[in-house]
Amino acid sequence: MKTVQISLGDRSYDIRIGSGLLSDSSEFVPWVTGQQVLIVSNVVVAPLYLATLRRAISGKTVEEIILPDGENTKILDTVSTIFDRMLAVPLDRSATIIALGGGVVGDMAGFSAACYQRGIPFIQVPTTLLAQVDSSVGGKTGVNHTLGKNMIGAFYQPRRVVIDLSTLATLEPRQFSAGLAEVIKYGLINDYGFFCWLEENIEAVINQQEDALEYVVEQSCLNKAKVVEQDERESGVRALLNLGHTFGHAIETATNYSNWLHGEAVGIGMLMAMQLSLLQGWLGKEDVERARSLLERAGLRVEPSVEFSASQLKELMKLDKKVQNGNIRLVLMKAIGESFVTSDYEESALDQTLGLYAIG
Amino acid sequence: MKTVQISLGDRSYDIRIGSGLLSDSSEFVPWVTGQQVLIVSNVVVAPLYLATLRRAISGKTVEEIILPDGENTKILDTVSTIFDRMLAVPLDRSATIIALGGGVVGDMAGFSAACYQRGIPFIQVPTTLLAQVDSSVGGKTGVNHTLGKNMIGAFYQPRRVVIDLSTLATLEPRQFSAGLAEVIKYGLINDYGFFCWLEENIEAVINQQEDALEYVVEQSCLNKAKVVEQDERESGVRALLNLGHTFGHAIETATNYSNWLHGEAVGIGMLMAMQLSLLQGWLGKEDVERARSLLERAGLRVEPSVEFSASQLKELMKLDKKVQNGNIRLVLMKAIGESFVTSDYEESALDQTLGLYAIG
Repeated sequence: MKTVQISLGDRSYDIRIGSGLLSDSSEFVPWVTGQQVLIVSNVVVAPLYLATLRRAISGKTVEEIILPDGENTKILDTVSTIFDRMLAVPLDRSATIIALGGGVVGDMAGFSAACYQRGIPFIQVPTTLLAQVDSSVGGKTGVNHTLGKNMIGAFYQPRRVVIDLSTLATLEPRQFSAGLAEVIKYGLINDYGFFCWLEENIEAVINQQEDALEYVVEQSCLNKAKVVEQDERESGVRALLNLGHTFGHAIETATNYSNWLHGEAVGIGMLMAMQLSLLQGWLGKEDVERARSLLERAGLRVEPSVEFSASQLKELMKLDKKVQNGNIRLVLMKAIGESFVTSDYEESALDQTLGLYAIG
Repeated sequence: MKTVQISLGDRSYDIRIGSGLLSDSSEFVPWVTGQQVLIVSNVVVAPLYLATLRRAISGKTVEEIILPDGENTKILDTVSTIFDRMLAVPLDRSATIIALGGGVVGDMAGFSAACYQRGIPFIQVPTTLLAQVDSSVGGKTGVNHTLGKNMIGAFYQPRRVVIDLSTLATLEPRQFSAGLAEVIKYGLINDYGFFCWLEENIEAVINQQEDALEYVVEQSCLNKAKVVEQDERESGVRALLNLGHTFGHAIETATNYSNWLHGEAVGIGMLMAMQLSLLQGWLGKEDVERARSLLERAGLRVEPSVEFSASQLKELMKLDKKVQNGNIRLVLMKAIGESFVTSDYEESALDQTLGLYAIG
C-alpha cells in the first residue's frame, strides 16, 4: 500500500495505491461528503467491479450510469446525457461522482463533475494501467471533437484517487501494454534511473508481480505529480508530459480513434519525437534504439504504418493544442531522461520523420 | 471613468467603467495576448456595436459568431455550435474570446472560453445594465437545462471587463429596469446607504444621467466584488447574492424563460423573500413597503401573477442549487442592508408567501 500526495493548495488530494482497495469502505466513505453518489462506469468494467464498489458505499444513495466502451463515446453528446440523468434524479450540489473505469470514463465523469452546477466533488477509481499512471494526476478532464482530441474540457481535481491494482488482472494485455507507454514516457522525459529500472524489470511488470506493479504506478504518479505541481494549468514545464502526444493525437484522429489505442499512438509518437531529435543531431542513435527495444518488449507498436500518410499527420498536428500562432511546438529529446519543448527545428527533419513512420 | 479592481490572486482583473470605451483600442489590445480573436455577440447587439469593436482591435485576426437573442438560446447545443466554429477556424490556445452583449452572450462565451482547450483568455463587454452590474463580477458562466437554470457551467474569470455606459442608450427600458433589480439587491443585502441613495436618485438613474449611472455601476460592482473576493466558489457568504433568486429562477423555469426577464423575476423574488421574512417576524412591514416602492419606481413587476401556481414554484425551488440534502435554503432578511442564509423557517410561511404571489 502506497500513498502519493498531490500538493495543489486547496485542491490537494491523495492517490491510494494497493490491492483490494475497491472493497474497503474506509477508502471512500470519509470522502463522500453528501448523501448522493453517482457512479459513472462502462459496459466492460461495471459487470466486473460495480457491485464491489456499491457494497463499499452501501450507506449512501447510489445512482449509476453505464456508458458504452471506447474513445468514440468520449464526446459532448455523452456528457449531455450524463447531465440529463443527473438533473432527472436530481443530484444536488453536495452529490459526489465516482468514476469507475479507464481514462475515457474518468475524463467524462470528471468533466461532468466540473460543469454540473459549476462543480461538484469527484473521486476517481481508475481500472486501467493507463488511467492509473496518467489520468490519476493532473486534473485534465474533457471530451473529443470530430476536429480534434480533448479539445473541450476543464482542469478539475478529484477529491481522492483510489487505485486497486487487482483490477489490472482483468485488463486485456494490449490495454496493459498501452498503459506502459506512459510509464516509459516518465523515464524518457526526466527520470533516467526509472528508465533503467524498467529495462531490468519490464517482464515482472508485464506479469503483474505485485511489488513491481505497485512501484511502477507509484513512481509514475510521483513523476507526474512533480511536473503538475510546478505547472497545474500547463503554461510551462507540464508541456513535457506531451512527449509523443502531438504525433500520437494525430494518429488517433487520422484513424478515427479506432485502430490505435491512445498508449500505442503515444508509444510510436515518442519514437517519432526521438527520430526527429536524432535527425537534428540532438540525440544519439543508441538512445533511440534503447527506447525502441523497451517499447517493443512492453508489447507496443514500433513499426511504420500504412494507415495514415505523412501529409495527413502533419495537417492534424497543426490543429494540436501545442500549436501557438501557427508553429508546431514539440517535446524533443537530448538524452534519455532529458527532454525540452521547442518549435526551433528544421521542417524538413519533421517531414522526413513523418515519412519514415507514416507510409500510407 | 472608474476602475473597479477584482482581487482573486492570479485570476485578478479590472473592470473599466465609462462612456465611449468601446471605440478605445487601448482598452482592448494590451489584453489580447495572441493574434486571434473570436467576438461572440447576438442579433440585437451586433448591428449596433460590432463594427465599433472590430475597429478597436483592427490589428488582430477577428472571427465572429452572432447568436440569436434570448435566454432560450442559453443551452448546451449553442455552446456546441460555438465549439464547432472555433475548431473549424481553427482557433489556437492563445486566442481570445470577447463577449459583446448581455448576460446570455457573456455566459455562453465565458463557458466556451472556459472549456475550449481547457481554457483560453476571455474579455467581457457587457452591453446591458444587468450584465454590467451582475455578470461583470464573479466569473459565473454556464447554460440552462430544460430541468433547471444555470445547471451546467464553470467558474471562470475574464481577463478584463470593459463597460461602455453609452451602450445603455439603446437598451429597451424594460431591460434597463430588469438590471435595476440587481442594483437594488446590493442595497438590500448589505448596503443600507446605497439603498437610501437609490431612493433619492432612482429617476436620475432611469434617465441615464451619466454621473448617476457611473456611480450605480461602480457601487454595484464594488458591492459584488466585496462578496466574491471572500468566497469565489460560493461555499459561504456569496450565497447572499442569491437574494430573490431561488424564487426568481422558479418563476423563470415555470414560464419557460419567456414572459419574465431574469431581473423581473429576481425583483419579485426579493419581495417574496421579504414577505417570508415578515411572516417569520424577522423583518418590519415598513422595510417591505420601502423595497416594494423602490422596485415599482424602478419599473419592475411587484404584483401577484396567474402565470404560475404556488405548488409549481415550490417543486421547482426544490431543484435549485441552493438545496442541500433536500432542504430549501433561502436568503432572508432582518432589515434593509442585513440579510442571511437559512433553511430554518416555517414551511407554512413559505407556502403562505407563495400563495400570495403565485395565484395561477
